[in-house]
Amino acid sequence: MHAADQLQQSIDRTGSIAVVGLDPRVDLVPPPIREHALARADGAAAVAAAFEELNRGIIDVVAGRCAAVKLQTACYEAYGPPGWEALARSVEHARTRGIPIVVDAKRNDIGSTAVHYREAFFDGGTDFAGARTPAIRASWLTVNGYLGRDGIVPFLDASPDASLGIFVLVRTSNPSSSETQGLPSDGTTVAARVAGLVAELGAERRGRCGLSDVGAVVGATHPAEARLLREAMPDTLFLVPGYGAQGATAADAVAGARADGRGIVVNSSRGIVGAWRDAPDATDWQAAVRAALDAMNDDLARAAR
Amino acid sequence: MHAADQLQQSIDRTGSIAVVGLDPRVDLVPPPIREHALARADGAAAVAAAFEELNRGIIDVVAGRCAAVKLQTACYEAYGPPGWEALARSVEHARTRGIPIVVDAKRNDIGSTAVHYREAFFDGGTDFAGARTPAIRASWLTVNGYLGRDGIVPFLDASPDASLGIFVLVRTSNPSSSETQGLPSDGTTVAARVAGLVAELGAERRGRCGLSDVGAVVGATHPAEARLLREAMPDTLFLVPGYGAQGATAADAVAGARADGRGIVVNSSRGIVGAWRDAPDATDWQAAVRAALDAMNDDLARAAR
Repeated sequence: MHAADQLQQSIDRTGSIAVVGLDPRVDLVPPPIREHALARADGAAAVAAAFEELNRGIIDVVAGRCAAVKLQTACYEAYGPPGWEALARSVEHARTRGIPIVVDAKRNDIGSTAVHYREAFFDGGTDFAGARTPAIRASWLTVNGYLGRDGIVPFLDASPDASLGIFVLVRTSNPSSSETQGLPSDGTTVAARVAGLVAELGAERRGRCGLSDVGAVVGATHPAEARLLREAMPDTLFLVPGYGAQGATAADAVAGARADGRGIVVNSSRGIVGAWRDAPDATDWQAAVRAALDAMNDDLARAAR
Repeated sequence: MHAADQLQQSIDRTGSIAVVGLDPRVDLVPPPIREHALARADGAAAVAAAFEELNRGIIDVVAGRCAAVKLQTACYEAYGPPGWEALARSVEHARTRGIPIVVDAKRNDIGSTAVHYREAFFDGGTDFAGARTPAIRASWLTVNGYLGRDGIVPFLDASPDASLGIFVLVRTSNPSSSETQGLPSDGTTVAARVAGLVAELGAERRGRCGLSDVGAVVGATHPAEARLLREAMPDTLFLVPGYGAQGATAADAVAGARADGRGIVVNSSRGIVGAWRDAPDATDWQAAVRAALDAMNDDLARAAR
């Protein structure tokens, strides 16, 4: 099944274009989970156990209410092999709940090396007997396209019965992205040139919904540019960071949607998983997460009208 | 100690500017190591055990004969947590042998997320008690600079008593890098603009040797451009991929060296770790690795004259 069709079905079923970022940090772990983890382990193992329990709890709350979840690999890698295990188990739990999974790894390399990253996040490696080893089974992976198509195409050539979707970084939400992505080039910008590459590579990889398995990261902090980039990428799914924590409004976040309202998913990480910190009772942290997601969905729905 | 000083001392001590790429793949594992691993484990665990044993054997052979080793994270990530353990143990072994370690992860993100990557590869994460968890202790990390300085600076701000060096991708060796890095921008190229950023950020991070902890990846397949990029980055260490396997000669590889011959290290991966495959006797695979490295050192020394 095309990654784009799976994601569009999830949007249609839930009525939500929100992507819930599972970016755990020690200060985002509710006290009951921290204490539970510390009763069984310490050090990196305790942190990893807490991250996994937190993610399971969030996934159970957001299932059916969001388009996808997104896991930021850096948060897990910081804790070494136990962190990697927590990432793998969290992805597996989201998979059993039927939620599309974006792994935000921003990987990039060429040829057989890029294939090894695809193996890590989709296919699995090959053992000495030629069998596949366990993989983190992402639906989508973020990819940094600075290496050109050599660094993009290998991520797409997965096994024939399934496809891994990718979101290529086109225009990110951070201020200094203008130093590189915003550079002028032949009357347009570097970001627009990368957008052209995304559209070209995605044209042959459209699902039944008409959208492509080659998506783009287009930050909410550049709404005018997002509209221009949409013209360059009419059938591309945009993964939009920068809503909330980075100051962009819901209207900014959906600026790059197609005329039919499709083609966009909007991420929020700390605004959802950290919502319990503003709640009066941390023991009911899941209620705070649910309320934050509901508020985000309402905000996005109002902006999309 | 500055990462640049550590690397320059290694070059001075060994007389070598070669970087040995520890990029293991199942078909690069000599039969005796494969059999030893399969006698104790299977699946991903066997592959990871073999990678670690292979790397230890290579490190023991190349110690004192090369400037640094470079580990490509993708090769290890493809095997999940056991692969990550093999990466960590290989890095630790190189550290005990006093060899500078480049982790070729091409990571990129902003703010606290970038810090988590730095924690993974240098500082360690923070546990619930505020203590550091075990890290992969790289000397240098490759970083993709497409996010601008927001995506570069956080990698540099490590603990005050040590520094992590970074090699920022400026001009990579693959053909399609011209689609992005080679784009024209205001009379120069995107790569040259990124080079300007590297030089600016590196100016305040020079070691006693005069070279900076902010390095650059400049591929051997663009020698004329490497000379121009050297003008933009006079005090920058270049990590040069593309020698050998990608068709570039030793003369191409050293084209970006400074007038004093400094400022450059040249990587070879498959050409060294796969050298045993052309040898008559795979049981003496270490002799083939040593011979391949000696030949590379001779080739580079001739070109540098």
